[in-house]
Amino acid sequence: MKALVYTAPEALDYRDVPDPDPGSDHHLIRIDSVGICGSDMHAYLGHDDRRPAPLILGHEGAGTIVGGPLDGRRVTINPLVTDPRSAASLSGRENLCPSRQIISMPPREGAFAQYVAMPERNLVDVPEGFSLEKSALAEPIAVSWHAARLGLEALHPADERRAHVIGGGAIGVAAALALRAMGVEAVTLSEPNEERAAYLSDVCKIAIDNAPETGIPLVIDAVGYSATRANASALVSPGGVIAHIGLGDADGGLDIRRMTLQEITFIGTYTYTAQDFRDTCAAMFDGRLGPLDWTETRPLSEGARAFSDIRNGRVAAPKIILKP
Amino acid sequence: MKALVYTAPEALDYRDVPDPDPGSDHHLIRIDSVGICGSDMHAYLGHDDRRPAPLILGHEGAGTIVGGPLDGRRVTINPLVTDPRSAASLSGRENLCPSRQIISMPPREGAFAQYVAMPERNLVDVPEGFSLEKSALAEPIAVSWHAARLGLEALHPADERRAHVIGGGAIGVAAALALRAMGVEAVTLSEPNEERAAYLSDVCKIAIDNAPETGIPLVIDAVGYSATRANASALVSPGGVIAHIGLGDADGGLDIRRMTLQEITFIGTYTYTAQDFRDTCAAMFDGRLGPLDWTETRPLSEGARAFSDIRNGRVAAPKIILKP
Repeated sequence: MKALVYTAPEALDYRDVPDPDPGSDHHLIRIDSVGICGSDMHAYLGHDDRRPAPLILGHEGAGTIVGGPLDGRRVTINPLVTDPRSAASLSGRENLCPSRQIISMPPREGAFAQYVAMPERNLVDVPEGFSLEKSALAEPIAVSWHAARLGLEALHPADERRAHVIGGGAIGVAAALALRAMGVEAVTLSEPNEERAAYLSDVCKIAIDNAPETGIPLVIDAVGYSATRANASALVSPGGVIAHIGLGDADGGLDIRRMTLQEITFIGTYTYTAQDFRDTCAAMFDGRLGPLDWTETRPLSEGARAFSDIRNGRVAAPKIILKP
Repeated sequence: MKALVYTAPEALDYRDVPDPDPGSDHHLIRIDSVGICGSDMHAYLGHDDRRPAPLILGHEGAGTIVGGPLDGRRVTINPLVTDPRSAASLSGRENLCPSRQIISMPPREGAFAQYVAMPERNLVDVPEGFSLEKSALAEPIAVSWHAARLGLEALHPADERRAHVIGGGAIGVAAALALRAMGVEAVTLSEPNEERAAYLSDVCKIAIDNAPETGIPLVIDAVGYSATRANASALVSPGGVIAHIGLGDADGGLDIRRMTLQEITFIGTYTYTAQDFRDTCAAMFDGRLGPLDWTETRPLSEGARAFSDIRNGRVAAPKIILKP
């Protein structure tokens, strides 16, 4: 099959590789659409030692099952492969399973390819009439859905349901949409890239506010750098909650003195539970997450160019979908 | 009256000052016992710009009401004076009240004195036969009770009720006792000062463990420095909770990458709600917090010496109570 292989920092090669082997317990999926994630970019820049070259990146895929008893089913892929018998999975927190794996990280190759192999429990059926291209957004939206859910659950019952999202990448956009889908009407988002901000305002109808007033009950840091955490810990109201998604700087930024004096909760969030993934898909399919029209589509064969365009801030849409 | 007045960094003067004026809405309390807190030490060292000299420190007091309709009542003092009509107070979070004041911080003088004036809502009656000396522990224990409660509430229902406390000062000891009173049987505590650690093990029957294994669902950082936060974020289990009490370093220490990848929650905690304070008193009075015999008593007139002894690590007991 053809695949976009990460071969060295800032080098991606579109080439022939062996087809994946589904074995007896996996299904082969022909990828229709696969999104580029910030973590793919991180790996591409050589900043993620969990993803050493050579490796097929990409974990936001949707496609059609090929062969076997489920042949022809249109599915979107939960890329997090966990042990269903672990204590974490049994308590509904598959994402904390000690043996968790994600496609695009060894030992599992990713979905920037014509095919990927997955267990059936990782596949969610896509209803007729709903595009596989939009279905490829399930994974990044599930990340944000999960963070929004944990953040809202941690809010004090007396706190106003009002939120600010830092960062207008796909995760930030999806966080704003997920919050809205969960009934939070007052959501703003900050995004310094003007072209991106205009796109989010025009296309996604998201209220952009790059200098919000402090005193916000829920702040979602959808970037994860020291500077955004400093911003989050200044913006959040006393007794409020910061839900933190990104993996930028490993430490720093939080104003812990203020967080202590004002009883602020910080929640690290990573991926999603299996239920969050299914709930996200359901909300996508029934329209609660909006038209999902904030993507740009390119051929997988031109993936290297897409990475360099994202890196150079030349992409207004928060998500590029590659088509093998 | 006599009072111990903080006059400059590392200088305390036991001298005559005017009696406090209870006005029409406060009661005058003759202090029987008042504890020395880590925050008093912080101020004494000149490290707390919220507490400029000259100032009477001390906020852990118990005594007897003198004069007025409540004359003779034995009470322990909740030193946090808040606006009962604020949104925070109405939601049961008086400690987040924007106008909160605490005695020992301007505009309110503290309790290292013969008398202090307080509103009635800040006073909890002490039952006959229960000593005012032990009652002076209500405030520091309430701090820990509050942190333990928030920490346990934030734990996932499936997580084991098991905890480790960092730091064997009064706040750490009280956190261990509060956790036990809340039904958490498996509690360990780390304390590097050997004399203090031996005291806690012998007198308080607290399990000391200075090198606990990682994977602890609830870690209470009762110190609040960068190094203890680094320790807390390494010890806590995936999906676990750090409850953070201290006001040491303003930032740093947390391994935010790990907290994100392993979904760890950090809760800043400060003082207590009025209900937590009352619940703590009830637990003290009915014996759930143990014999409360981990104090050392000295005359207020020798307070300066007590501060220097604490500073030089020459006090095994986690709490010194001063007697005016």
